[in-house]
Amino acid sequence: MADSWSVEFRVRYAETDAMGFLHHAKYWEYFEDARTELLKQNGVRYRDLEAQGVFFVVYKASCTYLKPIRYDDLVTVTVLVERVTRTRVDHSYVVMRDGVRMCEASSTLACIGRDGRPQLMPDSLWRCAGSEHRARRGAKPATCATSPK
Amino acid sequence: MADSWSVEFRVRYAETDAMGFLHHAKYWEYFEDARTELLKQNGVRYRDLEAQGVFFVVYKASCTYLKPIRYDDLVTVTVLVERVTRTRVDHSYVVMRDGVRMCEASSTLACIGRDGRPQLMPDSLWRCAGSEHRARRGAKPATCATSPK
Amino acid sequence: MADSWSVEFRVRYAETDAMGFLHHAKYWEYFEDARTELLKQNGVRYRDLEAQGVFFVVYKASCTYLKPIRYDDLVTVTVLVERVTRTRVDHSYVVMRDGVRMCEASSTLACIGRDGRPQLMPDSLWRCAGSEHRARRGAKPATCATSPK
Amino acid sequence: MADSWSVEFRVRYAETDAMGFLHHAKYWEYFEDARTELLKQNGVRYRDLEAQGVFFVVYKASCTYLKPIRYDDLVTVTVLVERVTRTRVDHSYVVMRDGVRMCEASSTLACIGRDGRPQLMPDSLWRCAGSEHRARRGAKPATCATSPK
Repeated sequence: MADSWSVEFRVRYAETDAMGFLHHAKYWEYFEDARTELLKQNGVRYRDLEAQGVFFVVYKASCTYLKPIRYDDLVTVTVLVERVTRTRVDHSYVVMRDGVRMCEASSTLACIGRDGRPQLMPDSLWRCAGSEHRARRGAKPATCATSPK
Repeated sequence: MADSWSVEFRVRYAETDAMGFLHHAKYWEYFEDARTELLKQNGVRYRDLEAQGVFFVVYKASCTYLKPIRYDDLVTVTVLVERVTRTRVDHSYVVMRDGVRMCEASSTLACIGRDGRPQLMPDSLWRCAGSEHRARRGAKPATCATSPK
Repeated sequence: MADSWSVEFRVRYAETDAMGFLHHAKYWEYFEDARTELLKQNGVRYRDLEAQGVFFVVYKASCTYLKPIRYDDLVTVTVLVERVTRTRVDHSYVVMRDGVRMCEASSTLACIGRDGRPQLMPDSLWRCAGSEHRARRGAKPATCATSPK
Repeated sequence: MADSWSVEFRVRYAETDAMGFLHHAKYWEYFEDARTELLKQNGVRYRDLEAQGVFFVVYKASCTYLKPIRYDDLVTVTVLVERVTRTRVDHSYVVMRDGVRMCEASSTLACIGRDGRPQLMPDSLWRCAGSEHRARRGAKPATCATSPK
């Protein structure tokens, strides 16, 4: 299972602010999108998870903005799974433009149910995510469950 | 029942774009907010409607941007109910700044159910909205149903 | 010169609302992005125009939302130049998903200067845009000016 | 000079996501708005600063989301100046709803010029911000410069 994935974003005009920069809040939309794509590479569609009553919400988030990004810039966001438990997933993010590091960030997601209360992630996802986590620490990766559809 | 309501908005930095203007898409967020407040003045909370399985979606929308609006400008959005049927509501909007007309818009909302299919609006809302509609045309207004909570 | 272009968008989670649909205001961000890409296909970068003091602002916009679009849906936005004068450009837009028409829209952009006042578009752009316009009506297209960089 | 200020926000529909919660990126728009209002209480309009070539950009940001916030919720954001130097300002933020702490955050802003390079904040702002900073540590506050208009 891939524990890292990169997605390219072309900065939209609507994502800039009066300073002409990509607004600092918008980075989080890119990071979220990159997580979605990383999951998809591992055969899991986040919207299928939600349909099954499994939600991941951002619990902690932090970001360092190293250099400003502008309208029409093409940036690459790389997301990496740093740590997985049955109830939480930590990711880190790097944003690059033309080989230059523009931004670094990290987040902790919590798994909750339809009622908004914390819950364990489903076995299938845990086997998949857990194996990825173990693999990065040298153990043999398990076969990852494929998406329901 | 009030068929018109005005709400003030202070333009946020994040709502501007690289041109330094309030981005044209953001006006629709102000209009939506003004509709919410108009409903509330009439004793109906939109989120209670959704909890009951009644959703209003934008079907048609059009807007003329007369003058640019900038960061930190204080604008007044006035929303007016133009026409009500059992399945649709037409609104018009005017945005003013310091007595100057900045923008005019109109929209048609459709009432749908949880399944996304068109449905009649609930009796309580129809009596209320219909009476308002009739009142504007000279008939005696009915007493408006109050919100469930 | 191309007078039409199509861009694919994968709906981001942050672009949805509590109804689970792509929020109606967000479509305008997709349309704006499609216009940027259409210009780029014709050798013009919008940000170079702005650097030269040429701005295009949305003057009129209208949209019909035919079917709801959801998180993670892949949609294709096709933008078409409908009419060009020295001070305005009209576009139309169609949003498709899996061969189904989801949304239709149109807009009028006005060319303004750094001072916010209307101005004629630069000759190079006009030759290019005008030729495209004439070509659609059967005349021979001119060679389009290339972007400064 | 006030070193803390509270602003109320009513969550807009467009600010929610498919989960029905205020999207985690949107909090940063509230925090930014609260900073603007805090400055204004101290007689400084941020847009006047920008007109003078003084920009504040977010350099670091971190946030802990304790409880989900929903559409139409009324929340109070309190911003507090934690530390001021000639080139940076640290703020902390607390979001409350009905007396319950929903979110805590902090940020570091950097002062830059029109060229995007770090610069010292203007004397007038520094006297004002510095006095506030000293006052919180027990020194006598200076009179704060008023905004140019």
